[in-house]
Amino acid sequence: MTRAKLSLYDTTLRDGQQTQGVQFSTAEKQAIAAMLDTLGVDYIEGGWPGANPTDSAFFETAQTQHATLTAFGMTKRVGRSAENDDVLAAVLNAGTPAVCLVGKTHPFHVDTALGCTLDENLEAIRASIAHVTAQGREALFDAEHFFDGYSADPDYAIACATTALDAGARWIVLCDTNGGTMPGRIAEVTRAVIEAGVPGSHLGIHTHNDTEQAVAGSLAAVEAGARQIQGTLNGLGERCGNANLTALIPTLVLKSPYREMFDTGISTDGLADLTRISRKLDDILNRVPRREAAYVGASAFAHKAGLHASAIAKNPATYEHIPPETVGNARIIPMSNQAGLSNLRKRLEGAGLPTDDTDALRLILDRIKTREDAGYSYDTAQASFELLAREALGQLPDFFEVKRYRVTVERRKNKYDQVVSLSEAVVVVKVGGEKKLSVSESMDAEGTDRGPVNALAKALTKDLGAYQDLIEDIRLVDFKVRITQGGTEAVTRVIIDSEDDKGRRWSTVGVSANIVDASFEALVDAIRWKLVQDT
Amino acid sequence: MTRAKLSLYDTTLRDGQQTQGVQFSTAEKQAIAAMLDTLGVDYIEGGWPGANPTDSAFFETAQTQHATLTAFGMTKRVGRSAENDDVLAAVLNAGTPAVCLVGKTHPFHVDTALGCTLDENLEAIRASIAHVTAQGREALFDAEHFFDGYSADPDYAIACATTALDAGARWIVLCDTNGGTMPGRIAEVTRAVIEAGVPGSHLGIHTHNDTEQAVAGSLAAVEAGARQIQGTLNGLGERCGNANLTALIPTLVLKSPYREMFDTGISTDGLADLTRISRKLDDILNRVPRREAAYVGASAFAHKAGLHASAIAKNPATYEHIPPETVGNARIIPMSNQAGLSNLRKRLEGAGLPTDDTDALRLILDRIKTREDAGYSYDTAQASFELLAREALGQLPDFFEVKRYRVTVERRKNKYDQVVSLSEAVVVVKVGGEKKLSVSESMDAEGTDRGPVNALAKALTKDLGAYQDLIEDIRLVDFKVRITQGGTEAVTRVIIDSEDDKGRRWSTVGVSANIVDASFEALVDAIRWKLVQDT
Repeated sequence: MTRAKLSLYDTTLRDGQQTQGVQFSTAEKQAIAAMLDTLGVDYIEGGWPGANPTDSAFFETAQTQHATLTAFGMTKRVGRSAENDDVLAAVLNAGTPAVCLVGKTHPFHVDTALGCTLDENLEAIRASIAHVTAQGREALFDAEHFFDGYSADPDYAIACATTALDAGARWIVLCDTNGGTMPGRIAEVTRAVIEAGVPGSHLGIHTHNDTEQAVAGSLAAVEAGARQIQGTLNGLGERCGNANLTALIPTLVLKSPYREMFDTGISTDGLADLTRISRKLDDILNRVPRREAAYVGASAFAHKAGLHASAIAKNPATYEHIPPETVGNARIIPMSNQAGLSNLRKRLEGAGLPTDDTDALRLILDRIKTREDAGYSYDTAQASFELLAREALGQLPDFFEVKRYRVTVERRKNKYDQVVSLSEAVVVVKVGGEKKLSVSESMDAEGTDRGPVNALAKALTKDLGAYQDLIEDIRLVDFKVRITQGGTEAVTRVIIDSEDDKGRRWSTVGVSANIVDASFEALVDAIRWKLVQDT
Repeated sequence: MTRAKLSLYDTTLRDGQQTQGVQFSTAEKQAIAAMLDTLGVDYIEGGWPGANPTDSAFFETAQTQHATLTAFGMTKRVGRSAENDDVLAAVLNAGTPAVCLVGKTHPFHVDTALGCTLDENLEAIRASIAHVTAQGREALFDAEHFFDGYSADPDYAIACATTALDAGARWIVLCDTNGGTMPGRIAEVTRAVIEAGVPGSHLGIHTHNDTEQAVAGSLAAVEAGARQIQGTLNGLGERCGNANLTALIPTLVLKSPYREMFDTGISTDGLADLTRISRKLDDILNRVPRREAAYVGASAFAHKAGLHASAIAKNPATYEHIPPETVGNARIIPMSNQAGLSNLRKRLEGAGLPTDDTDALRLILDRIKTREDAGYSYDTAQASFELLAREALGQLPDFFEVKRYRVTVERRKNKYDQVVSLSEAVVVVKVGGEKKLSVSESMDAEGTDRGPVNALAKALTKDLGAYQDLIEDIRLVDFKVRITQGGTEAVTRVIIDSEDDKGRRWSTVGVSANIVDASFEALVDAIRWKLVQDT
């Protein structure tokens, strides 16, 4: 059976930029466009040239190997010709092979937002699309509020779609702009549009996640006959976000009935790169990746329940819907008090520490239990777990020993009566038989005090002798603190996430009633784990 | 038209606890169960008694007004009778009115995980359910891996379901345990099960979010005839989480076709409490609430695009699928604080600070905005909010001024080669025109180092002159730290909960790149708030 082409249209750089707190620089847009191009999407919508200086600058230098670069804009304003509309002109001036114009299809919006007649709006759609195609560009029409519009006035909504089609639009994209339409209704309306004369091969779908069903709504439209999906990486976008391509792509490639029906053009290699791409985008945005994200989240293949973990040890298919490596992700079998020996053995194997020594396994379990009672948690702190296991198995080198540290935190007013604060740390380590005393303060390059943990981290990593080169690329990316309820007095648990230039990311844990000391312990573990990998 | 009863089954306390990094204490379980009971769900699954000490402790004291408390367990093991199965006995010993037992329905799992024959498994299901009902309890059967099992061997999967039904199970819950089944397939299989003789009124659905379609899958089953949905608050759960009740409930109550078809028992008041409940759960777990969460996220009704914001100003229905207040959420419109003002006035009234001074209200809003941009959050830190408002309204006395502080944290080995740590703090305050220098160390009565924040707190509260008597009964009861992502560099937000002998409990916030300094700021606010109350 020949599979139909299903077109993937990425709008991370345009609709994705409507996410609260997200504002891409031109360089960031370029980096993201390059990732999308390698991944294998068909269209990359780069922004709205003229409306946003960064977007204009992006199009000046943007280049793709595979994807069609697309500029976004809106249909011409009523009362001037398409040729004389400066907003539309700025969009076309970006010189992209494809142009996507959003336009109204709902009488309420034509009236409330545009304040023109229904016929004037139809003419604006016709003239704008015709103007784009007359310049030899591929035209797409984003039919805004289409599903709400169709419910209010089906004939008018259809007329907007067919007007754009007749004017030469390659794609009519049905947008559920407010995100409130149920997947079943999306399918129903999509079928009605096809029956009314817009072929499915020219129909796209653009959904939002306001009811947590953007993915399901996109798939419903595709099952009803639409052949383009618009979405964003990691589901970025206004309000609750757009349809999440990071979840949609593996489903389309791997799951029935889609894998048999459609050719998305995403290769096996592209799919295996998906987890890295997703996390790289979060890196660019300085966001903590969602652990629970479908397919690509750090927890997506984490098996915590004891019964699940022991079955996974027998056969991973028992509790996994796909092999994690298909999407570049990895299995995690965390420790918890619901876990047993088989769980532990499997987890050690995954960490490259296979053992059948039952005594050693019991020793590790005992140590974990003792530490969990003291407030430690090894669910997420996989790296600290591995260090504990290595120590019990006699497989942990004595890289260095911290002899002592001292950190001061000070806040006072300076002579200008401004409050200033500063931390200073002294750390003494013994490495390669030699004592090394390092000192550091907590100021960053901009002169901001980053606090005592920062000062300690800098002093600790200042001189580790022969190991110094191996730790230079460690970066602290997240820092979580929790007061645990173990024992008669609360203690502090610190979890630190680190990463390095090889794309590794690892979590370590420290526990103490003293928050600085707990942080220091997690920092030391982060360095030791890195040294285990690279020595 | 009479609406059919749709039963809501919450498993936050059981399946939700399988979330990586989540481990509820008994007190936390009680607090969450109380919220669920008020919300109006039909069942609260509290845990697996016998498998987990916290779960057993929870059931010892658990009480509900409305919801049916349910204990979770598994079908009896092959080779012993239901009466002699100690695991099952522990579940029944919790004394709950309902008991939910998970069992196998997929031949592959019967073979791989249980290692028994298909008939032995059927008998285990029958005997276990019969044993539960014989004790006068309501029995539920969680049909594990049902959809995968049905695809492999439809007759056997159906036989498991009808066996449980015939043995007296009130609900047969079809579980998509591995989360890989598409909503369309879920609907198809649900219809087949009904046709095979299990009435929809006895069928439930339990989905996971591994393809980001747990909500859509639940709704598909319900449209096909199932009448119970199992899910969790905020979509907690193993791997990518369970079906998110926080998204499902508003959809079921507000959206066609569900609102016309079903009665969920969730009241208008319950629905309007949903945002608060969702954030309170995140507070308990010390997780950062997802801004983009459907319905309840802080961004769910945030309108960033300029065109959207100007249309919203004319009529909110232009870009909102529901009014945000329906679910207790609020609209966010950049550059327009019209809505903000009335919210603020209400909150000040609640704090005993009524005002109609629009200039003062605007000043407070501006200060809050500036501080939120810097990483502060006043959602939970009500006491710090009140202090900020009082300051703007000229209603905050200058109790005392901190001139400077200095704290040292030291760790070294003592002469017995034991690692010891100690913090010392010096705080200089000006109170009643007098400078007071206080010093304190971090040791508690048992000789344990409690860290720099403890040393600072003790030094700060050692001598506040005339106010000293008023602050003696302040106790720090909780301490939460988060790395916020506001601005170009991450900063630390500390939230401190304090209480006193009058039974008051209050939350204050401090923000700084320096964790000790952020803690100190929250401590100072905690003392000032207490002084406002008692002077």
